[in-house]
Amino acid sequence: MTSAAAGSIDLNSDMGEGFGPYRMGPDRELLGLVTSASIACGFHAGDPRIMDTTVRQAARSGVSVGAHVSYPDFAGFGRRHLAVTKDELITDVLYQIGALDAFCRRHGTAVRYVKAHGALYNDLAGDETLATALAEAVTAYHGDLAVLVLAGSLAAEVIAGRGLRVIREGFADRGYTAAGTLLPRREPGAVLTDPAVVAERGVRIAAGRPVRAHDGTEIVVGADTLCVHSDTAGAVELATALRAALTEAGLTCRPFAPPPAD
Amino acid sequence: MTSAAAGSIDLNSDMGEGFGPYRMGPDRELLGLVTSASIACGFHAGDPRIMDTTVRQAARSGVSVGAHVSYPDFAGFGRRHLAVTKDELITDVLYQIGALDAFCRRHGTAVRYVKAHGALYNDLAGDETLATALAEAVTAYHGDLAVLVLAGSLAAEVIAGRGLRVIREGFADRGYTAAGTLLPRREPGAVLTDPAVVAERGVRIAAGRPVRAHDGTEIVVGADTLCVHSDTAGAVELATALRAALTEAGLTCRPFAPPPAD
Amino acid sequence: MTSAAAGSIDLNSDMGEGFGPYRMGPDRELLGLVTSASIACGFHAGDPRIMDTTVRQAARSGVSVGAHVSYPDFAGFGRRHLAVTKDELITDVLYQIGALDAFCRRHGTAVRYVKAHGALYNDLAGDETLATALAEAVTAYHGDLAVLVLAGSLAAEVIAGRGLRVIREGFADRGYTAAGTLLPRREPGAVLTDPAVVAERGVRIAAGRPVRAHDGTEIVVGADTLCVHSDTAGAVELATALRAALTEAGLTCRPFAPPPAD
Amino acid sequence: MTSAAAGSIDLNSDMGEGFGPYRMGPDRELLGLVTSASIACGFHAGDPRIMDTTVRQAARSGVSVGAHVSYPDFAGFGRRHLAVTKDELITDVLYQIGALDAFCRRHGTAVRYVKAHGALYNDLAGDETLATALAEAVTAYHGDLAVLVLAGSLAAEVIAGRGLRVIREGFADRGYTAAGTLLPRREPGAVLTDPAVVAERGVRIAAGRPVRAHDGTEIVVGADTLCVHSDTAGAVELATALRAALTEAGLTCRPFAPPPAD
Repeated sequence: MTSAAAGSIDLNSDMGEGFGPYRMGPDRELLGLVTSASIACGFHAGDPRIMDTTVRQAARSGVSVGAHVSYPDFAGFGRRHLAVTKDELITDVLYQIGALDAFCRRHGTAVRYVKAHGALYNDLAGDETLATALAEAVTAYHGDLAVLVLAGSLAAEVIAGRGLRVIREGFADRGYTAAGTLLPRREPGAVLTDPAVVAERGVRIAAGRPVRAHDGTEIVVGADTLCVHSDTAGAVELATALRAALTEAGLTCRPFAPPPAD
Repeated sequence: MTSAAAGSIDLNSDMGEGFGPYRMGPDRELLGLVTSASIACGFHAGDPRIMDTTVRQAARSGVSVGAHVSYPDFAGFGRRHLAVTKDELITDVLYQIGALDAFCRRHGTAVRYVKAHGALYNDLAGDETLATALAEAVTAYHGDLAVLVLAGSLAAEVIAGRGLRVIREGFADRGYTAAGTLLPRREPGAVLTDPAVVAERGVRIAAGRPVRAHDGTEIVVGADTLCVHSDTAGAVELATALRAALTEAGLTCRPFAPPPAD
Repeated sequence: MTSAAAGSIDLNSDMGEGFGPYRMGPDRELLGLVTSASIACGFHAGDPRIMDTTVRQAARSGVSVGAHVSYPDFAGFGRRHLAVTKDELITDVLYQIGALDAFCRRHGTAVRYVKAHGALYNDLAGDETLATALAEAVTAYHGDLAVLVLAGSLAAEVIAGRGLRVIREGFADRGYTAAGTLLPRREPGAVLTDPAVVAERGVRIAAGRPVRAHDGTEIVVGADTLCVHSDTAGAVELATALRAALTEAGLTCRPFAPPPAD
Repeated sequence: MTSAAAGSIDLNSDMGEGFGPYRMGPDRELLGLVTSASIACGFHAGDPRIMDTTVRQAARSGVSVGAHVSYPDFAGFGRRHLAVTKDELITDVLYQIGALDAFCRRHGTAVRYVKAHGALYNDLAGDETLATALAEAVTAYHGDLAVLVLAGSLAAEVIAGRGLRVIREGFADRGYTAAGTLLPRREPGAVLTDPAVVAERGVRIAAGRPVRAHDGTEIVVGADTLCVHSDTAGAVELATALRAALTEAGLTCRPFAPPPAD
């Protein structure tokens, strides 16, 4: 597989992860740098006010909206594995997509894709039952929605096999194993923080060129979108450096699924 | 104003008010008797599984689906006044409509109307700000949705004034004051439980004929729908008697907003 | 180990598992039959009103109060595995014990033991880290509290090894494997519903006599308390038959940790 | 009434108002400046981890712990009026005190007082039923606990009348009316931000000397404790200036109810 469009790449970032009086991440700044916004739907973070504001800002910025769906684990910010049944996942995902889409209607945009958050993202990457459940929920909502999953994962195959458009996500600021999986966070070299290094790796991934894995071998990460973390120190600086480097390399940043025309 | 269609009336009932392992009300039986189902959206009751099941059953029964929206007060079943701002109400209502509509998409139906639950229903009946907020939320979602409110209330005027279709609700099993408002529940005669009496009053209201108010005067309750309570003992018996009496009186029970054709 | 007191046995039942307008289980009737009440603390079920009422009724009935602690999974009734850290479990358990004990203070009683609910009960039975975390939480609250766990489990050893009093739970209405573990619910013979059979097995377990395991071999279930399920059809009938049979067999039903004297 | 101890004053601050990954307020810095910590109990903010950490830090700092109890309105941070019954308030308050006290047991301290948060604080200041309910809850938990309320409020009288120790709270950074009530926040002069002004007013209140009300008249605010806001910009600077000024004026800062000796 090659990137969705030669010479172009999507940049996506998690957004709207505050709640009530709490805020997380520099959403406004990032909306000027990314092309897709994965917006929390109230299960791990987000509330109706924050969802409304974030969708409105994304719409104004011409950024595509995705539903960032999670296990129902507010206390754990969706970062803990929860043993859900297939039916529980399907219905929890439908609830979240629909809730977010209501704010999209208000602001003249629409949910264009679905991305799992936290533990659910990791769990379903390698779990056929969970990946199938996600696909069923998305199909039940609207077969035109894309599904954003880890590049190279079993989930990518399973969901594509259900006839949905799959968007493969790569990480410019994470170390990879030789097998193309993410290096666990506890390993040295798992998280990269030098903007120059991150930008350079982002360009390589976006251009379909190999990057160096943890053991020194070179791998190709087939990615349609790059993740721009919003919850790390220096998020804006990293995103700025990445975007500049992509432009300089002649790569266009654009959403894999553009927001609807007004 | 007269009824929406001469010789016809809608019957609506609250549905899907369980949560997790809990159930409330004889939903299945009532779906065979009513024409509109006001389904809880997770703020006072309901969860994604129960919403999914209730929507599916309503769709199969040819019953119209409405979003039964509430203050975010799960602990109080939405029965307690909460001092929300206009923006809070708009966004809370949008969230709930969207979530429910996702299940409607799955089952080939659609949310056709919005009804406030419990304390919110009572609060907004006489509160212009809250009624306006509800109207704005509904308009933002879809201007074709009807809004079900207390017959004769200020809310009915306010919401109609915003260009939305208003459905006026009457109560066959509640006593009325001479002014056409509901007798408070603590008053004697506020709640009627004799199926024959309820059925007879229901026929009068549906036919546009006067009913006797608490003080003996006769009033006309201009209603497009009759409420069939689901949380009282004998709910099915009352609904059965009411439906039979309406049919016998030559009145047709049909939804004010039919579900979409397949 | 032998039973806590020769010729006596405790009967415990889950209680207070309603929420808001919802109720579950015949609590009042069971309080006349059991000697210990494991009361939900708001994490899988229960709310402050129900906790207050259940504690008051238990105190009046002379029934001992235990904190029935759970994963924070209200949507799943605590029946789903959740990947918590040790610190999360310790602090979640402390919160729940303290909350319940406040109602005990009001009604002149005290939390005398802690029992895990649902998925947590099963998970910690064989998990040293979780069992240790539970022991640490209980010790931090009050070293005099007993901990009720599955008879024969690793947790029984681990918690006893931390110096706490362990109460071993047996099941008169469940099938056992030859190894002394519970037969999974999906297996035939896993759940027994005939009151005569349940009563007879309960007497055997309470008297320290062998019961027949699923494969026909005989095993001894060393138990200090018998579980009286409150959420099954016929719960009161089963409990009545069990209690009568124990009395007839000369066995005394009494709490392993009596409520404090007034 | 005069201050609890001539020449001394308590400084209290709201603490532990984060949740999950969110934090609010410079708790650590403030624990070095105040003498009493009003800690959120999970109803408007706070979770078991944050409660545990905050209690531990307060205990280490020799700061007294109070339960900062709230309406159950997490979405609104407890800032919205909710129409609760007396029984609901009593049981909600008991739940919160008990939960917090569990962490106090773990860290060798104890809840010494109760303070209402946000809308509940304001509502009960002038509402006899709510104030009585708070008093009943506190009495049921432990009659030795103090109750912190707005100086000069009806609640102060009502709760003292129930035999509980009342701690009257004054505000160095808020404008007062001539009647001794707080100037509503929307009025000019309602919130003072100049550290020198705040410190000077704090010294006056603590010393029992008059301060200038909004209309220029002089009033005496009989206060046993001064509120140190933790959620305003410059909270640490204000608290530092206030504490220094009190010391310079010869006033001792000490808790009205010292933490238990180890």
